[in-house]
Amino acid sequence: MTIPENIQKLADELATLPSIGPRQAIRLAFYIAGEGEKKADSISRALSGLKTIGQCSRCHFYVFRADAAASASSLLCSICVDKTRDGSLLCILEKETDLISIENSRVYRGTYFVLGGPINDARAKGRVQKSRERLAELIARLTAGSLMEIIIATNPTTEGDLTAIVLKKELAPYAKKISRLGRGIPTGADIEFADEETLGAALENRK
Amino acid sequence: MTIPENIQKLADELATLPSIGPRQAIRLAFYIAGEGEKKADSISRALSGLKTIGQCSRCHFYVFRADAAASASSLLCSICVDKTRDGSLLCILEKETDLISIENSRVYRGTYFVLGGPINDARAKGRVQKSRERLAELIARLTAGSLMEIIIATNPTTEGDLTAIVLKKELAPYAKKISRLGRGIPTGADIEFADEETLGAALENRK
Repeated sequence: MTIPENIQKLADELATLPSIGPRQAIRLAFYIAGEGEKKADSISRALSGLKTIGQCSRCHFYVFRADAAASASSLLCSICVDKTRDGSLLCILEKETDLISIENSRVYRGTYFVLGGPINDARAKGRVQKSRERLAELIARLTAGSLMEIIIATNPTTEGDLTAIVLKKELAPYAKKISRLGRGIPTGADIEFADEETLGAALENRK
Repeated sequence: MTIPENIQKLADELATLPSIGPRQAIRLAFYIAGEGEKKADSISRALSGLKTIGQCSRCHFYVFRADAAASASSLLCSICVDKTRDGSLLCILEKETDLISIENSRVYRGTYFVLGGPINDARAKGRVQKSRERLAELIARLTAGSLMEIIIATNPTTEGDLTAIVLKKELAPYAKKISRLGRGIPTGADIEFADEETLGAALENRK
């Protein structure tokens, strides 16, 4: 049984997105086809709306770019232009969505830097990783001892841990203190089902 | 923390798709934004490719519509025009993707009819359901006792079961036999983890 070619093409596109597998992609493509042209058009419109999204030249978070012709180097996000934020604190994250999550916790009032992914030289295979480039760019901007604290907010995964080790080593000259997000039992979780590493960290970080 | 408006708009669109929740939608929208215009454009192109997808006027499966101006009532899919298929067998399904799965099993050589969803009058709330309309259309086309067998291939869920009951009642005059897909242990499954209903059905259908 061959799936109609243009539905398969859409499914192939959708399957390139993270966390969407080939079966889900086919289900989605059939669903969109079944909804008719209006649905496809409204998704297309939303996609073309991304053309007005630029990146903050300082922290690399997304920012609305009113003028598409504006030089990318002049874009600044609302956090980077906010004078009330503590510029002596720098939180380094893997992804833009991590920034939103930390902002939503309303505990942090410093500035950010989005790496764009973990640093994993093994996987880069010859080409320079985006995260490596961004780290070099950050270091070029910093002066020795200028920051009070750098908070490494990479994910609590093997890749995030390795990235944290690299960051800690390379950024050591630029901040009085380098910290990492605390580990422990997440709020609302059941101790019975927590894994050993998390429980171990929770015991160590008890207070 | 406000998410850039146009990323939020894309996320809202994606969240209307089945099995995509609001958090996944935001992650996808950020991912597409991060991939740059090329990615957004290629998805948009695939979406506009759906304009050449029409629906078979007989079974409602999707069919390539070479001429967009062609009357919808003249479209026929490759299965409906295939003279080697047994026209005295009719398999009724909820979704187009169910048809593909059954075709891929290579056991069935009859014809199909896609309902477009379960029949659930309680959820329709006043408006006529697409599946109800299609059932009426199917009945208008059939003549008493013309079919050898109608195979009801609705999902083994509460909604699918209710739909099967409605179909069985309303289609009884038109076929010598009305059957439903057999239930039992799926191939590759572990009996230990099969639910009671499935095990019960497997015992009843033993052979």
